[in-house]
Amino acid sequence: MESFSNKLMNQAQGQTQLIALDWGTSSLRAYRLGVGGQVLELRALPWGVMRLPEVGSAENSGADGKEGFELAFEQACGDWLRAEPHAPVIAAGMVGSREGWREAPYLSIPIAVDQIGSTLSTVRTRAGQVIHIVPGLIQNSALPDVIRGEETQVIGALGMLDFDKDSSRAEQPDEQDEVLIGLPGTHSKWVQVRRQHREMESRIEHFSTFMTGDVYAALCAHTILARGMQASEVSRSDHGAFDRGALVAQTPAGRAGVLSTIFSTRTLGLTGVLDAAGQREYLSGLLIGHEVAALQILLTKQRHQFPRVILIGDAALCERYVRVLKAYGIDQVEVAEQATERGLWQLALAAGLLTRISTITKE
Amino acid sequence: MESFSNKLMNQAQGQTQLIALDWGTSSLRAYRLGVGGQVLELRALPWGVMRLPEVGSAENSGADGKEGFELAFEQACGDWLRAEPHAPVIAAGMVGSREGWREAPYLSIPIAVDQIGSTLSTVRTRAGQVIHIVPGLIQNSALPDVIRGEETQVIGALGMLDFDKDSSRAEQPDEQDEVLIGLPGTHSKWVQVRRQHREMESRIEHFSTFMTGDVYAALCAHTILARGMQASEVSRSDHGAFDRGALVAQTPAGRAGVLSTIFSTRTLGLTGVLDAAGQREYLSGLLIGHEVAALQILLTKQRHQFPRVILIGDAALCERYVRVLKAYGIDQVEVAEQATERGLWQLALAAGLLTRISTITKE
Repeated sequence: MESFSNKLMNQAQGQTQLIALDWGTSSLRAYRLGVGGQVLELRALPWGVMRLPEVGSAENSGADGKEGFELAFEQACGDWLRAEPHAPVIAAGMVGSREGWREAPYLSIPIAVDQIGSTLSTVRTRAGQVIHIVPGLIQNSALPDVIRGEETQVIGALGMLDFDKDSSRAEQPDEQDEVLIGLPGTHSKWVQVRRQHREMESRIEHFSTFMTGDVYAALCAHTILARGMQASEVSRSDHGAFDRGALVAQTPAGRAGVLSTIFSTRTLGLTGVLDAAGQREYLSGLLIGHEVAALQILLTKQRHQFPRVILIGDAALCERYVRVLKAYGIDQVEVAEQATERGLWQLALAAGLLTRISTITKE
Repeated sequence: MESFSNKLMNQAQGQTQLIALDWGTSSLRAYRLGVGGQVLELRALPWGVMRLPEVGSAENSGADGKEGFELAFEQACGDWLRAEPHAPVIAAGMVGSREGWREAPYLSIPIAVDQIGSTLSTVRTRAGQVIHIVPGLIQNSALPDVIRGEETQVIGALGMLDFDKDSSRAEQPDEQDEVLIGLPGTHSKWVQVRRQHREMESRIEHFSTFMTGDVYAALCAHTILARGMQASEVSRSDHGAFDRGALVAQTPAGRAGVLSTIFSTRTLGLTGVLDAAGQREYLSGLLIGHEVAALQILLTKQRHQFPRVILIGDAALCERYVRVLKAYGIDQVEVAEQATERGLWQLALAAGLLTRISTITKE
């Protein structure tokens, strides 16, 4: 028995178990995953949903407006599929949006994370390959909110946390905790997850979007604040300016809100306090500070203590958030890595996509 | 005596008493003012400080980098000055900034408005004409703030208000009131003025800048929100969407702040609640709502009741602000007209510039 399964393992070691696509607005990352979700190969392509490869007249013959997706898909993993035609394919992100390849309708929250994997949509390529697309989530609150792609990263990060199965807690069968997962980026998302330890169930209960990165870029390039930053082509880090900005939101002047406080980027330039690079850093800190301050207001309305925080995203950006969170007294912060590929793997598992290959291998 | 002064009046009716320039970042407005500050002629030119007329090689011979200003000035009022060489010239706005023709250094607040007219800077054109430039104001608070050009409009608006000289108030010699002057625009300014009725003195005590218009334009054109607005080339007004946006800041969801609430522009589009034009209007209301809500927080920290409000600016924009102020329970709002030219007239009076012509006329 053991020797047989060992043999199987060796055979499958380099073998594609899953092709997982992280397909966003501006880029496409393709993972070739092996046993246990191990990353065997990774390709990063510029073919985001909003900038697909250009389609020649030949490919364009049977035009349904989706040729760009076909082309990008072929470049991303055509050869992987030819080598392992039975490998299932899963994709998350804007590829499932209305502007994507096939809309994977939003699921409403609150939702148990296990449920997400059982509601994948599918699109079939012209070559007949089925792609399973992860749905986004919608929060139908007074101001609706949506995530798409981040649900996958959240699932990946949660998979790295152990449920508390400590016997000393047996007397507390309803033991639960809360995790706040932050995904800084163009649009930062903060996702609140409640975990029931007895049922080993995680539920996404709430999330909030902050357009911090998008606003930062627009302010730096297209408002009066651009004027003071022009001299600074080189991005030089300036912790002093960044920290100064980060604290603004919690001062009395910060009560005026972002529309007002951002102007101080210019006035601190006019008064010689900040140079061009310093103004950029100050504004970055100021906006992230407002985001964290708002989050603190929102969360402390609901409970007494701030939950455990896990960050997912670009390392340098996460570092900025850790810095600001610390300045606001939130020290218990972890950074999760490989959340996307792990999330895609877990979703494929939950969807039952990963049984096929092993069945085929056994045959 | 009377017939002599009547004759003088008639003579001076169409005569230039003052040339007043409102010279901002993107445009130049030149007023030819007659007796009592009456507007005899107005010219609007596109020659803002940041986009001056191009200078040919001939004019460029004695280059000091200010030829564009010379050229714009000549176009604006060269003929007026040739007809009335003794007319004094006053200018306010970005023409007095560091990037302007001559820097008119900021005066610190609090400041009595009468003091501003006695601190004009001057620049001399190549033809020898002296231009008096109004200084901007600086507030050296934790986050410094500045105005330049708006101080002139504030003075113009204050000139239209009567001091309370009612004898019934004689027993209250320290009678004072407060006026809040709002100047909506690319960068909205809210200026707090305290008026001492006995001394008939107005002091600018505080001001706050909100980059609402600048941020609105950048969000509409350069962030994800642009995507849902693309179909809307025609600006159609949608009071429903505007009002819906205006109220967001005072709801529990509004506590998340602008960086978060603006995303609802997109999600209300995704969920079919707002069309392209509606999204624009909603965002406009939402931002102005945040501005007014913040102002309310700032001011109610200082006192119990909201002061009398006077708005200065583009009529359609003022209407939007009146609408939002009303939604926030602030009904006592007036809109002041011709504040700029009146302010320039008053400043010229305070500076003693208006004695010359009548002297000359008498000669």
